[in-house]
Amino acid sequence: MKKTVFALAALSLALPATSFAQDNNGRYGLPPGAHDEIAWDFVEGITTEIGPRLAGTVDEARAREWTMEWLRNHGFANVMNEPFPIQTWVRGEEQARIIAPFPQPVVVTALGYSGATSAQGIRAEIVHFATTDELRAAPEGSLAGKIAYIGHAMRATQDGSHYGYFGSARRQGPGIAAQKGAAGIIIRSIGTDDDRLPHTGATNWPEGVTPIPAAALSNPDADNLERMLARGETVAMELVLTPRHLGETMSGNVTAEIVGSDASLPPVLLACHLDSWDIGTGAIDDGAGCAIAATAALRVAEEGQPLRTIRVLFAGAEETGLWGSRAYSAAHADEPMGVGFESDFGAGLIWRLETNFSRTNPALFSRLAQAVAGYGVLPAPQIVASGGADLNILRDQQAPIVDLQQDGSRYFDLHHTANDTLDKVDPTELAQNVAVWTAVAGVLANEPGDIRGADIIVEE
Amino acid sequence: MKKTVFALAALSLALPATSFAQDNNGRYGLPPGAHDEIAWDFVEGITTEIGPRLAGTVDEARAREWTMEWLRNHGFANVMNEPFPIQTWVRGEEQARIIAPFPQPVVVTALGYSGATSAQGIRAEIVHFATTDELRAAPEGSLAGKIAYIGHAMRATQDGSHYGYFGSARRQGPGIAAQKGAAGIIIRSIGTDDDRLPHTGATNWPEGVTPIPAAALSNPDADNLERMLARGETVAMELVLTPRHLGETMSGNVTAEIVGSDASLPPVLLACHLDSWDIGTGAIDDGAGCAIAATAALRVAEEGQPLRTIRVLFAGAEETGLWGSRAYSAAHADEPMGVGFESDFGAGLIWRLETNFSRTNPALFSRLAQAVAGYGVLPAPQIVASGGADLNILRDQQAPIVDLQQDGSRYFDLHHTANDTLDKVDPTELAQNVAVWTAVAGVLANEPGDIRGADIIVEE
Repeated sequence: MKKTVFALAALSLALPATSFAQDNNGRYGLPPGAHDEIAWDFVEGITTEIGPRLAGTVDEARAREWTMEWLRNHGFANVMNEPFPIQTWVRGEEQARIIAPFPQPVVVTALGYSGATSAQGIRAEIVHFATTDELRAAPEGSLAGKIAYIGHAMRATQDGSHYGYFGSARRQGPGIAAQKGAAGIIIRSIGTDDDRLPHTGATNWPEGVTPIPAAALSNPDADNLERMLARGETVAMELVLTPRHLGETMSGNVTAEIVGSDASLPPVLLACHLDSWDIGTGAIDDGAGCAIAATAALRVAEEGQPLRTIRVLFAGAEETGLWGSRAYSAAHADEPMGVGFESDFGAGLIWRLETNFSRTNPALFSRLAQAVAGYGVLPAPQIVASGGADLNILRDQQAPIVDLQQDGSRYFDLHHTANDTLDKVDPTELAQNVAVWTAVAGVLANEPGDIRGADIIVEE
Repeated sequence: MKKTVFALAALSLALPATSFAQDNNGRYGLPPGAHDEIAWDFVEGITTEIGPRLAGTVDEARAREWTMEWLRNHGFANVMNEPFPIQTWVRGEEQARIIAPFPQPVVVTALGYSGATSAQGIRAEIVHFATTDELRAAPEGSLAGKIAYIGHAMRATQDGSHYGYFGSARRQGPGIAAQKGAAGIIIRSIGTDDDRLPHTGATNWPEGVTPIPAAALSNPDADNLERMLARGETVAMELVLTPRHLGETMSGNVTAEIVGSDASLPPVLLACHLDSWDIGTGAIDDGAGCAIAATAALRVAEEGQPLRTIRVLFAGAEETGLWGSRAYSAAHADEPMGVGFESDFGAGLIWRLETNFSRTNPALFSRLAQAVAGYGVLPAPQIVASGGADLNILRDQQAPIVDLQQDGSRYFDLHHTANDTLDKVDPTELAQNVAVWTAVAGVLANEPGDIRGADIIVEE
């Protein structure tokens, strides 16, 4: 549960009516058919020429090389890779079938860091838990030799806020099941689609717990399993998962800069992550985010050299545990950041502006709000932004953070599935993202004063 | 090309205004939230308790047993299985990846009757053809050692009529490629979705042609491949497909009856097919169709014993070549059929009534039109129905046929994919189908006169 440490003052922003009337009157303040060719070139290129780029693999290394070349070709300065070591896990075979009472195959995919079965797999009874809390309440040892199943179905929300709660089935469920002696665990996909394309994602094993085979079941298969379970007979599954650990390999953070005119001012950091899950092509997660961040930096530069340096951070190894974000924060602990924001939620239209300085720097907040209102983005001064996965350096420094909330109503249809492909990126929505980012980055990169004064979020 | 052998007289149907005003005024003439529990029970049951039921396999045999029990439990008479032999093909491993210039995995599924690669697969250059006709025009031998790719993208239509044309890439493309010496063939999925779930389906090998490995590529992967090809470099693929032939195994046609009061009148045949492709669960193709046919027969019987016998035909082995339809026609060549219709296009709303007797029996056509108008179904007297895959017996006998056209706008998103699951069946739309079928079957089963006089369709 997140909570601000002080009561927010009631804020009201008087936006001038004219800020909604841009020169071009298209939807979201963009000309009809708006298309950002540079942003599209990035996401089209990386999905076509690289595709999946799992953290710590040669594919991620190829993605770094490709990206550094792209950044150099587009005029960025100080393009570099900061390598760091990670523990690397790779997927193997994955097959599952109901073997009794109604034999038929079902579609699963291993969760990141899942344990492995033998090549022959395991065959075990399924025990149904409606929620992660129900699993947590199961008596110790009650799952010995069985496969736990958590059926909790995620809801779609515009701001994606249900992911934290429902995602506990994936993040904590396997560890809980392992502690109770389960032979394996299957969870209903943390996703809102009805496709037979399960959602992968990393799971966390508590200290000292031996990983067990852990997989996501597609939503239609979860529905089918629950219909079988509702008939009252014992349902048994055969599960084959053969992922393996490669040990320590190298990942890296790619950074590049638009150099500002005043080197004494802390930089504006625009972040995204370069790695992707192996089963998709990393279009919405997070090719689009990197396209938005890099292109916004270029668009600001087109208006003339900014006061502050704009640095883009294409973090490595985000999906498998925020390795890059942590490594970057540690390596740059002594370098103050001016302000940061991140794109890692697809390419849906940005609809809301959040910061952690609306109370401490209301004048700047108001200017940002006015800069984006014409794009259909409204300020939410009552929300204290805490930033995305790749902004550890901002949080660690208690520095200013902006969140440009994208519409994620359909994001979790695709997130961490094979369906994360270029065709899911709407070019006009991508262009709106770039325009909003450019507006915000332009204001921040030309801000002469101290942006600092961020509200602090504490976990209760 | 289909063409009637005579010019249709201009027909106009004067429908009474009252036929659109039913007792219940819900959408499509159904009460709000309409749900047909019997039809739902069938499609829910067969997808949950049987699931995939590929022609000629033990799964199809289990489906026959399950269905016969269901039919007996619901009061059908003369429930039986008429076995027939088929040549059975089963899927093996299927994997593909682009190996140059942009290595990444792509998602394929073998076409029915595809040839096999070795377990190590083949590695070959891809040659792009925009259409099947382009492939047909390639010089003999020009594909030696290469993999042909046909990129033609199917369009969605309400009546599904584009399937015939675009489907030629699947039906004829592999045979053409084999004749030109190709090492294999990949086609863009014959489907209208953007999921990474390729569409399987049978292909036809011309007499004397040795099958080559043949697979469908999902639409997002086809898009990606075409982006690679557009960059102008040679694109090469590794393809592993290991399907195999089981030789001759048994399939069967399940039939059951609502016995009519006048045994001298030829029966009304309500058809569907019981087999399904192996990668889905056969919900829309064709569990829903069998649910509609069987339930309509029961609903007519609820109104009292009909004059004619209503027979349901749950054909076997439709997907792999209409084996059941042909076997049934041959076995019952000497038994005249009164009239037949079929459901094999999902469970979308019925929107159009077609027959092959609007010209020869306009009075009956008019009564059918009036019976269904309240459900939002309008007559199309200008269209000469030729019936679906399982109605060979009607065509062979030049007998009357009815087509109750369903809305197939989204059918080819799911058809022959893993996504053919129960959640894709809308219960209210299923109920509308049953209501329309019941209305039509009720009129026909109580028709004392000769329904015959069908227009003949000839293939040019």
